Amino acid sequence: MGQHTEVESRPLYDPDLLKRLDFSESTTKFEPLISASQPGDGLLVRPLCSSDYDKGFIQLLGQLTKVGEVTQEQFFKRFEAMKTCPNTYYVTVIEDTQKSKIIGAATLVVEQKFIHDCAVRGRLEDVVVSDEYRGKQLGKLIITTIMLLAKYLNCYKITLDCNDKMIPFYSTLGYKLEPGNSNYMQIRFEKTCHL
Amino acid sequence: MGQHTEVESRPLYDPDLLKRLDFSESTTKFEPLISASQPGDGLLVRPLCSSDYDKGFIQLLGQLTKVGEVTQEQFFKRFEAMKTCPNTYYVTVIEDTQKSKIIGAATLVVEQKFIHDCAVRGRLEDVVVSDEYRGKQLGKLIITTIMLLAKYLNCYKITLDCNDKMIPFYSTLGYKLEPGNSNYMQIRFEKTCHL
Ligand SMILES: CC(C)(COP(=O)(O)OP(=O)(O)OC[C@H]1O[C@@H](n2cnc3c(N)ncnc32)[C@H](O)[C@@H]1OP(=O)(O)O)[C@@H](O)C(=O)NCCC(=O)NCCS
Ligand SMILES: CC(C)(COP(=O)(O)OP(=O)(O)OC[C@H]1O[C@@H](n2cnc3c(N)ncnc32)[C@H](O)[C@@H]1OP(=O)(O)O)[C@@H](O)C(=O)NCCC(=O)NCCS
Repeated sequence: MGQHTEVESRPLYDPDLLKRLDFSESTTKFEPLISASQPGDGLLVRPLCSSDYDKGFIQLLGQLTKVGEVTQEQFFKRFEAMKTCPNTYYVTVIEDTQKSKIIGAATLVVEQKFIHDCAVRGRLEDVVVSDEYRGKQLGKLIITTIMLLAKYLNCYKITLDCNDKMIPFYSTLGYKLEPGNSNYMQIRFEKTCHL
Repeated sequence: MGQHTEVESRPLYDPDLLKRLDFSESTTKFEPLISASQPGDGLLVRPLCSSDYDKGFIQLLGQLTKVGEVTQEQFFKRFEAMKTCPNTYYVTVIEDTQKSKIIGAATLVVEQKFIHDCAVRGRLEDVVVSDEYRGKQLGKLIITTIMLLAKYLNCYKITLDCNDKMIPFYSTLGYKLEPGNSNYMQIRFEKTCHL
């Protein structure tokens, strides 16, 4: 384990929310049957916690994209900044409790609107399952968890942006390319620093 | 005017931010030259304010999509909820100051990440210019304002989702469909209410 300071671990959002999700509402088929409350032996689906820096959360994200050298201090700062925005960030992880390792993650970001009667919408972001754990339904599990969470939180829709290769995967999970309305455009900025 | 209670009008975000934007950084051509600080006679580009319910902000959004019957109380509640999330919601409007009417709007939503060295990214949402004011560069102006704001706030990219018809418009403003990575997928939920 090495030396570490004992600090209280805090969840990013209320863990009880995950207990209230009804997996029978999802059309996604799990075989064998698993859910957020029963993800399988030695696994736990829960909110990101402030202690997850020590459980390899940042390394896991490194399997998704460039993460860089995130220090524990930066992690805490970002965690607190997310927590300061009420009802917005639902970073959700799968822990291998035997190894105390984060082996899967996905984020629901809730955006508040004025349109559609001051609705909220959800976004699925930063989905990743650790390579040794792939092909065991855990990708499906965490994505379905986020979808049910968005529904539970009254989002009128949940959306994602993805590359061509991921379309078949997300299609099996209920996501649709709406004809004539499925374009994602971007402007990338050079690294700047005014702040 | 009718009767109204005098309440202090509060901006959703610091109006000074808009003064710091450098329109020469944008490749978008304006002819005649306009900018967020100098949008033209009788016009003002500024953050959404708590008094904008009375200036037709909700009616303007009705030209973009279904808004529904948003009461002043609902508007205030949503405004305050957005303001409670620091550094997240930058709803920006154009006012016709002679008529005290909101005639254009667009929103920058800033999302906090762990990836890319705990980066932030921007999203352009809910762009609309009132029909009598279209074709006068105000769409370009508000979209460029949001782009420069995202850059100023250190976003590593700004993105949007749109239908096929809007691709040419956003392309002229610097937005790109990245080959192989330009898909927007969604799941729409039936109206639910657990909360
Ligand atoms: C995508 C990812 C999350 C899937 O995780 P996983 O735990 O292996 O997924 P599951 O076991 O639940 O797979 C469910 C099904 O989708 C399939 N699948 C997985 N990746 C797929 C892909 N890219 N395209 C099509 N199908 C795919 C699996 O083969 C499986 O099919 P099956 O049930 O018929 O065998 C994982 O591969 C990953 O982390 N990849 C790297 C990061 C990434 O690309 N994230 C998505 C960014 S948009
Ligand atoms: C789209 C919208 C914001 C543009 O506002 P605007 O003030 O008329 O835009 P501008 O005057 O800055 O127009 C800039 C240019 O884009 C062009 N343009 C406008 N809408 C366009 C479209 N849908 N496709 C292609 N070009 C378009 C204009 O003709 C103009 O070209 P020009 O400079 O060569 O004459 C406005 O039409 C609107 O509010 N539409 C309804 C709501 C909507 O569709 N919002 C976007 C949702 S994604």
